[in-house]
Amino acid sequence: MTNATAPLEPRQRILETAMRLFYADGIRAVGIDRLIAESQVAKASFYRHFPSKDDLVLAFLRLRHERWMNWFAGRLEARCAAAGPAMERAAEVLREWFEEPDFRGCAFINTLTEGSAQGEAISVVQSHKDELQDCLLALARRCGHPQPERAAEDALLIVEGAIVRAHMTGDAGAADVARRLLQKSWS
Amino acid sequence: MTNATAPLEPRQRILETAMRLFYADGIRAVGIDRLIAESQVAKASFYRHFPSKDDLVLAFLRLRHERWMNWFAGRLEARCAAAGPAMERAAEVLREWFEEPDFRGCAFINTLTEGSAQGEAISVVQSHKDELQDCLLALARRCGHPQPERAAEDALLIVEGAIVRAHMTGDAGAADVARRLLQKSWS
Repeated sequence: MTNATAPLEPRQRILETAMRLFYADGIRAVGIDRLIAESQVAKASFYRHFPSKDDLVLAFLRLRHERWMNWFAGRLEARCAAAGPAMERAAEVLREWFEEPDFRGCAFINTLTEGSAQGEAISVVQSHKDELQDCLLALARRCGHPQPERAAEDALLIVEGAIVRAHMTGDAGAADVARRLLQKSWS
Repeated sequence: MTNATAPLEPRQRILETAMRLFYADGIRAVGIDRLIAESQVAKASFYRHFPSKDDLVLAFLRLRHERWMNWFAGRLEARCAAAGPAMERAAEVLREWFEEPDFRGCAFINTLTEGSAQGEAISVVQSHKDELQDCLLALARRCGHPQPERAAEDALLIVEGAIVRAHMTGDAGAADVARRLLQKSWS
């Protein structure tokens, strides 16, 4: 993400460090001192941009949401274009994600389950999943599913289950179980 | 869990406090000082029973596994006896759990996602899920499912998805989505 001719500004450098560390190690596990050290910014600069850790957590969740949704929707579109729209395309995109070497589950599930989301952060976590469900609803409609709302609700539960299974076992094969379940969603 | 005529021994008191606090707030969020204060034990007593926090985490996960699996298997048995064996009985038991006022997701998923499990604790987390899958496999066999291994694998993913959805939304209705998906597992 860095650009050799234009080094990142301090705020962006802190945020990219948070993107990497919060996802890899969890929010509670990463302290401000480590964020400052790895961002290579002065302490005063850090606090000028992010007066509290909660401010940085919120910025992290918003950026992660934006990047992940764009990635997911883009890959889903590409797969639908190549192989025809179908609910199981969602599982095929999940498999790509699960196979990434730094995959460590869903940042939003992780934030919720570690109990580190407060106030506005909880809203960002929940609206991330609402937007994912909307994306699955659009897919169900595009497939001509007779009950698109129900199909999207089913698909979101399957997606969440696959993410947790892939994270727990380290095996991307959870996406194949999800694919099988999504294929059944017409019955 | 306390018994007025026989107060708990210090070790058990610490463990019951950990059972409550680790589940409610997460492992990283609960420090040793708070565990000592709420257990009402001396610091030396705490460290005699649990030389490190990791020792207490391990004891917590083992006891939680034992209690939860016994509860789940018992409720599943009761529902199968009352309404006949079927894969969707698992979702009906989940609904009972999701409706408990202190429900905060699965302690094992939470431990994994907050990144606080190390070494042996990771094995306990994984074997908890293996045992749950075995329980679902026994149910699939009892139902006479034509592909019991596959049905159990599907069911575990559905169970995990339902837990995460119920935790995220605070709505026990996730169990109804799981029920619908489990009913389809014959197709």
